[in-house]
Amino acid sequence: MDINSYLTGFVDGEGCFSISFSLRKRYKFGIEVRPSFSISQHKRNKEIIFFIQKFYKCGGVRFSKKDQNYKFETRSIKDLMKIIIPHFQRYPLQTSKKEEFEKFCKICRLIYSNQHLNKSGLIEIIQLSEKVNVSGKKRYQRNDLLKIVSKMKV
Amino acid sequence: MDINSYLTGFVDGEGCFSISFSLRKRYKFGIEVRPSFSISQHKRNKEIIFFIQKFYKCGGVRFSKKDQNYKFETRSIKDLMKIIIPHFQRYPLQTSKKEEFEKFCKICRLIYSNQHLNKSGLIEIIQLSEKVNVSGKKRYQRNDLLKIVSKMKV
Repeated sequence: MDINSYLTGFVDGEGCFSISFSLRKRYKFGIEVRPSFSISQHKRNKEIIFFIQKFYKCGGVRFSKKDQNYKFETRSIKDLMKIIIPHFQRYPLQTSKKEEFEKFCKICRLIYSNQHLNKSGLIEIIQLSEKVNVSGKKRYQRNDLLKIVSKMKV
Repeated sequence: MDINSYLTGFVDGEGCFSISFSLRKRYKFGIEVRPSFSISQHKRNKEIIFFIQKFYKCGGVRFSKKDQNYKFETRSIKDLMKIIIPHFQRYPLQTSKKEEFEKFCKICRLIYSNQHLNKSGLIEIIQLSEKVNVSGKKRYQRNDLLKIVSKMKV
């Protein structure tokens, strides 16, 4: 079996490419951007989660008591650019997750080249984000974020 | 990419090996046994469902309006024995679904050799079944089925 192809199949079903935003007063535009690649499985499948971490040689594994899930997650922009993205470029996803991945790549490239530190780059990232995931108590929509950024005088 | 390995990965996340039982008065033991291999996806991923059907050259695809899902399913014991089971023997599952698959194999072999037509074979099948899935209005547990079979005088 080819393990690279196997993992692409597994991620096509179970993986998640997401961008989350946190509101931070100390940041230039008040918003922190964090890309994340993750895979969650019920504890009965924890072996595959630890295998994936070993295989990619990056990321961490956390256990959620609430869901009884083990989650592999990598948030390091360097690991995403050098390990995760090249994997899925070489072994391409076959479902609609491919489009999600392509937007994720664009966002990671923008962050890697520090475009998230200027207004137009940050606006592009928010617009590219499929699922706008904002941490904090209040719920934010994509438009709320765009308003916050565009109010900034830089 | 190796498509066989990809499919094993995809099925490890999304596939389902199941055995369903139907109560049928015209059957010798009053019970029909049906093995099934299926994969469901939201309609946005219907291409992969049709691809799988083409790839395995067996089974059918149905659309569920309720769930907005496309489901590939093969129930033919011959196709299960000659196409589906050999695939996962050559490209093995890596999660706990592997154990589910191994029980499924044992049951398919029993059915293929007509062991489901004798009492002890049918009891073995019911005992091996991970999820006892009985069609009809009334809910049945594994023990109910075992009672029905053991009452038969054959």
